[in-house]
Amino acid sequence: MKTVKLIVVGFGTIGKGVLEVLRMKHKLVKQRYGVDLQVSGVCEIDGSLINPGGVDIDSALLYAARGKIREHPDWKAEKSLEVIRKVPADIVLELTPGNIKTGEPGLSHIKAALESGKHVVTSNKSPLAKSFYEIAALAEKRGLSLGYEATVGGAIPIINLYRDNLEVNEVRSIYGILNGTSNFILTKMFEEDLALETALKEAQELGIAETDPTYDINGTDTAVKLVILANSIMDKHVSLDDVKVTGIGEVTSESLQLAKKHGYAIKLIGDVANMEVSPRLVPLSHPLNVSGTLNAIMLDTDVAGTLTLVGHGAGKIETASSIFSDIMHIAKSADISRK
Amino acid sequence: MKTVKLIVVGFGTIGKGVLEVLRMKHKLVKQRYGVDLQVSGVCEIDGSLINPGGVDIDSALLYAARGKIREHPDWKAEKSLEVIRKVPADIVLELTPGNIKTGEPGLSHIKAALESGKHVVTSNKSPLAKSFYEIAALAEKRGLSLGYEATVGGAIPIINLYRDNLEVNEVRSIYGILNGTSNFILTKMFEEDLALETALKEAQELGIAETDPTYDINGTDTAVKLVILANSIMDKHVSLDDVKVTGIGEVTSESLQLAKKHGYAIKLIGDVANMEVSPRLVPLSHPLNVSGTLNAIMLDTDVAGTLTLVGHGAGKIETASSIFSDIMHIAKSADISRK
Repeated sequence: MKTVKLIVVGFGTIGKGVLEVLRMKHKLVKQRYGVDLQVSGVCEIDGSLINPGGVDIDSALLYAARGKIREHPDWKAEKSLEVIRKVPADIVLELTPGNIKTGEPGLSHIKAALESGKHVVTSNKSPLAKSFYEIAALAEKRGLSLGYEATVGGAIPIINLYRDNLEVNEVRSIYGILNGTSNFILTKMFEEDLALETALKEAQELGIAETDPTYDINGTDTAVKLVILANSIMDKHVSLDDVKVTGIGEVTSESLQLAKKHGYAIKLIGDVANMEVSPRLVPLSHPLNVSGTLNAIMLDTDVAGTLTLVGHGAGKIETASSIFSDIMHIAKSADISRK
Repeated sequence: MKTVKLIVVGFGTIGKGVLEVLRMKHKLVKQRYGVDLQVSGVCEIDGSLINPGGVDIDSALLYAARGKIREHPDWKAEKSLEVIRKVPADIVLELTPGNIKTGEPGLSHIKAALESGKHVVTSNKSPLAKSFYEIAALAEKRGLSLGYEATVGGAIPIINLYRDNLEVNEVRSIYGILNGTSNFILTKMFEEDLALETALKEAQELGIAETDPTYDINGTDTAVKLVILANSIMDKHVSLDDVKVTGIGEVTSESLQLAKKHGYAIKLIGDVANMEVSPRLVPLSHPLNVSGTLNAIMLDTDVAGTLTLVGHGAGKIETASSIFSDIMHIAKSADISRK
């Protein structure tokens, strides 16, 4: 049996989802892979649960659900950077929300983790979009893994699929629907002939769109994910400034109905070959014509031909699937020795 | 640098595709993975190319293209079983066409390979459909790998995706379009209002359907792949006899046009939950509504939610992508030591 210790940095929706899935799957992971996953730290903004022998998952979730995490017996005043550096662990899960201009606070968390000899798994797009090559080089130098499957496409394991299952392929281009909120809005406008404002309001009422949906509507969120795919899968050395971005703000229900009449949908497509995010016509029977909040990512490869993956681009449980894909890749590897 | 030696059993379309891709990618695999892939044997029905120091790929393909493989300097009278047992190699690639009732000759090839301590990678559905658990147990007992990504969905890496990237997921059901020929026919009937016979003739003229398309039309090919998915991903312990099979023979262009009027396509769906192959209505914007010869496989999982993979279900180069996915999984693992 291998024991693999995790530090969870950021205990919002994603962090809670990870602990919920860990509670559900702890036994299965032990049985199937001989890996005992333990949590030695959980960092909030103003302090952390710390227990090198393993924080009790049930009680952590229970205290959090009651809004009383600070009353948990393992609660300490130590903040994330200190915990990352000092608490013994194999993998730091960086699950905070990020600022796309600075990459912080995730960027500092990731660097601190790698500098303290800990593997990193993150769901945080900002540090990757901002400093992919810097972080990747730091991880490589230290012989550590950097997993970021959850940053793009939610539950769709696109990055690890490329690494693990398409070894002899060169990826020539990547196209994708990478933002569930805008796809939900376009689907509503297409199917029910709604105005953008009405569809957006419905998305907000359903909890699909956030109160400030600017980055979903104006294409920035798609562009950030495009940069991560371009660098990680195609080694493009690009940044957000290199992407021409047009959002869905100007798409009208009239244009959608006209497209429909001719057998097309309109989708917000991220296109690595042209480093462009824009609304585009997609034939109705095309694999990228997926509805609702679904994401779809198409890889054009030289051997396998065109491969498309469709799945849930968000959701705390769904996203945890990708986070655990990264965790298990590290746990199964020789990097962590059997005890 | 690791040297990994392959024996290619079956030098038809798939076998030639594998050597073509190897010729194209030999250098890339060396650079990217430090693996030198060599071919120590290539088995035809009546003899083999044998060269423990490495058969020259270029000349093997050239002699084969000229129909003069038997004049190649490495040609020997030894047949497949003898080569599998006696020629030194790490992996046997079993790429012959199979008989779905007996599983032969692939079944004997696979057993001989495992019994001689060689890993197996196969594109041959029949031995898997016939004796999955027997072969899997034999491989496990010997501590050897058995790769069969290419048996289902052509270039779609569905089996390895499940193994490598969905570790904490339980798969609750699998649905798929697993036969490109029947999907091509249904697409033609749907889009151009053709009769089945006309669409089939077109498929044959384009080289998509074989001279005898019985198993494509009557659903048997889909059922065989369904059995492989059910056993390998869901551990269902089923055989071909457990599948209720209805092919596309009774689907009329009238029913397709009626479906279209109501926003549906008709697709030949393999459904593991009900162990059934049958033509079914699929909404036009559904991820399984893919056109032409494309295949699409949908996994319903408990953590990631629903994931769909769409790609090329056939083609000698495309299928080779899956074969190399299996080869590289073995080559990268600790099973084969660096020399």
